[in-house]
Amino acid sequence: MIQLGGTMEDTIAAIATAYGEGGIGIIRISGPEAKSILDKLFIPKNLEITEHIANRRLYYGNVVDKAKNQRIDEVLAVFMNGPRTYTAEDVAEIYCHGSIISLRKILDLALQHGARLAEKGEFTKRAFLNGRLDLTQAEAVIDVIRAKTEKGFHVAVDQMEGALSEKIRSLRSIIMDLLVDVTVNLDYPDEDIEELTYDALEKSLMLINDNIDRLLATADTGRIIREGLHVAIIGKPNVGKSSLMNALLKESRAIVTEIPGTTRDTIEEVLTIQDIPVRLVDTAGIRETEDVIEKIGIEKSKESFNKADLVIFMIDGSRPLSEEDFRIINHIDDNKTIVMINKTDLGQTVSDQEIKSLLPGAATIKAAIREDKGIEELEQKILSLVYGGKVKQEESLLITNVRHYNLLRSAKEASKDALDMARNREALDFIEVDIKRCWELLGEIIGDSVTEDIIDQVFERFCLGK
Amino acid sequence: MIQLGGTMEDTIAAIATAYGEGGIGIIRISGPEAKSILDKLFIPKNLEITEHIANRRLYYGNVVDKAKNQRIDEVLAVFMNGPRTYTAEDVAEIYCHGSIISLRKILDLALQHGARLAEKGEFTKRAFLNGRLDLTQAEAVIDVIRAKTEKGFHVAVDQMEGALSEKIRSLRSIIMDLLVDVTVNLDYPDEDIEELTYDALEKSLMLINDNIDRLLATADTGRIIREGLHVAIIGKPNVGKSSLMNALLKESRAIVTEIPGTTRDTIEEVLTIQDIPVRLVDTAGIRETEDVIEKIGIEKSKESFNKADLVIFMIDGSRPLSEEDFRIINHIDDNKTIVMINKTDLGQTVSDQEIKSLLPGAATIKAAIREDKGIEELEQKILSLVYGGKVKQEESLLITNVRHYNLLRSAKEASKDALDMARNREALDFIEVDIKRCWELLGEIIGDSVTEDIIDQVFERFCLGK
Repeated sequence: MIQLGGTMEDTIAAIATAYGEGGIGIIRISGPEAKSILDKLFIPKNLEITEHIANRRLYYGNVVDKAKNQRIDEVLAVFMNGPRTYTAEDVAEIYCHGSIISLRKILDLALQHGARLAEKGEFTKRAFLNGRLDLTQAEAVIDVIRAKTEKGFHVAVDQMEGALSEKIRSLRSIIMDLLVDVTVNLDYPDEDIEELTYDALEKSLMLINDNIDRLLATADTGRIIREGLHVAIIGKPNVGKSSLMNALLKESRAIVTEIPGTTRDTIEEVLTIQDIPVRLVDTAGIRETEDVIEKIGIEKSKESFNKADLVIFMIDGSRPLSEEDFRIINHIDDNKTIVMINKTDLGQTVSDQEIKSLLPGAATIKAAIREDKGIEELEQKILSLVYGGKVKQEESLLITNVRHYNLLRSAKEASKDALDMARNREALDFIEVDIKRCWELLGEIIGDSVTEDIIDQVFERFCLGK
Repeated sequence: MIQLGGTMEDTIAAIATAYGEGGIGIIRISGPEAKSILDKLFIPKNLEITEHIANRRLYYGNVVDKAKNQRIDEVLAVFMNGPRTYTAEDVAEIYCHGSIISLRKILDLALQHGARLAEKGEFTKRAFLNGRLDLTQAEAVIDVIRAKTEKGFHVAVDQMEGALSEKIRSLRSIIMDLLVDVTVNLDYPDEDIEELTYDALEKSLMLINDNIDRLLATADTGRIIREGLHVAIIGKPNVGKSSLMNALLKESRAIVTEIPGTTRDTIEEVLTIQDIPVRLVDTAGIRETEDVIEKIGIEKSKESFNKADLVIFMIDGSRPLSEEDFRIINHIDDNKTIVMINKTDLGQTVSDQEIKSLLPGAATIKAAIREDKGIEELEQKILSLVYGGKVKQEESLLITNVRHYNLLRSAKEASKDALDMARNREALDFIEVDIKRCWELLGEIIGDSVTEDIIDQVFERFCLGK
């Protein structure tokens, strides 16, 4: 367990803006020496000698390397008294020209004057260790920064503002109430207190179970919001795959650039469908003329189908199914497949029934991509898959974090075990152990009980300067 | 001519930090509506209703889309009263999470509330139009941001602080004094004033001429500081070119990333030699095994030699010159060539005299790259070429800008014409015209007399948000 609320002894510094050339760049310094370091490297203009640098006021002046008697850059600078700052410590920020050289030189000066280079996410880690943010809020900061779609951004901002923490805290308080009841019944069985019946216990545990279930149910959507929906397009050459890809990309290309965290396949495109990020993987095929399955190898194609959340299988509906189509049919999981019967404008030879008999679990869409027919239906089918009736689209409390998901799953197991034992009328002290475990696991989510290792892992995902 | 000192009527906004993910991002808003736009989109926390947002004080709060009743992001925000701001107008800045989505949404809100998207360099352009910076200072801002070496950075910062302007202004004031003398002598020949003799006129014009010459002499170094020294390496295969490239790159790679403004050749490496940026162009050769000249074509290789400030011609000194060596010798300009006689550790068959007779203007270096011999001498030769005795290395006032260079050249011509006429004792009113022209051309450098077209050209080079 890590001690919260302690004050860090050293002062850290880093470049806080994105790397590259910009109008303005920021150096952030946090810790007990923030003020004295700022004093050593910054000379305000138009400030009377007797005046002090006031809290939270922006000053215009120069960063100067006094040892070398060299002016570095013209800047604005601010000092903010802790604890009402980002890290809850004293913080100084220097707004210089967005020049890589200027940023590096000012950072170097700060380091020379006693600051230590901040590790990834260390400013936010301090905000957490100093108790200004809980762990889910701190984790959300990097999700806010990395968000690629509006939906992902708003979910992250809400989490940063404490939406998930609040939910977890209220759940924990229900569990704690129950735990108190159980403990009192165990420790003071003879006192004149209300007896906890097994029926009441069952009822409480079912409520807890349901609540955790409902959170877990958001995780699929949450993951998709965050990582994107993996969609594989497959079909023989010239069946219209690239036309479909272009049609889908048409509107969305400008919005999404890249989804972080995974290696991008060279034949992958990222787009959004009504703000859902979609990673469209073309399993070879599109730019090739050879047999798709042969070309990429059966193992590799199977792998990419298995990885995909959804497979779009395109066929030429105007001609009978070919040998190659059958080979594809043998390799895909019909339950996550949408069959696009394309080129129906040239007449429909392949019937829906034929497809149904070959791929019973698949949805089918009659399409004529050249005439923009079928695109909208496909988008609708993708959307309904993401929200799958489980989550309302308005819901912004989503589990987007794997750590949270795993802890919730364990908490769910613990509460389920407790419920099963209550149903079997087993001894209260056994049940108590599982309820307590459930309470602790939920605590780990918000960082109430968490080891240093986990904290380190959480902040490793961050970028420098945050 | 453009009217300076006028107040802009509209309010502009842009993202001011580098594009990408970072800890913090900045939206800058400048103009008469800056305060009212900030009020419309920013809600400070912990601020009493009756309190006003104070000048230059950082406030913590939320950016909110009030129409949609949606919180966008947690931010710090500041309002700065003009004219003591970057643009000399009212300025608001919003420091949000360095998320592309957050930055875009806040910028969108500012635009919805009446701001106009700023053009490239428009903030700095306003600083110039409002008289806070002269044109050389404004131009230096983008050089500061784009600087790739410390030297380039410091030269730009000095120019931004007015070092060049000061020099030009003092030169102009000398010219103006002379111009007054000339005019008085022309218009009031009968008055009791000191007569301007042709000898005195010559003396003054020579001083002016010298001053402009001294500035022009810095331009070569200035260009190199800014764009880098173009160095082409040539030589037959396996002569040691890649070893040389690696030896030169060894220390400097970490510092320089890229020189802006020109298309990078794929076989070009950028490095620094004692803070001089060097663009090393390998004219094919290195990764090839074919005859260099044949491979890249005579025209193309001539072109790259002609473009280069310096050609390093490597030969295998342990063997007689080959046919291919002779072919290269026929195509290079000996006056800008350094011949590296490599592999001298294996015995020297090719003598310095032989090279001298073939390439009389070239410098020669005996080298054994494998043993690190000759590298230091090469670096020294490159350095002496850059500073060429003309400029002291300490000098930080350098002409780095082509616009300045061209104007100085024209001013030099005008002053030279005036001097020649003075020497020929031609009529004062002819001489006056050229002196005036010289004065005006120098004025264009600092933007005292400059057309709107030129201003537009200057700020087109800028990035967005500056």
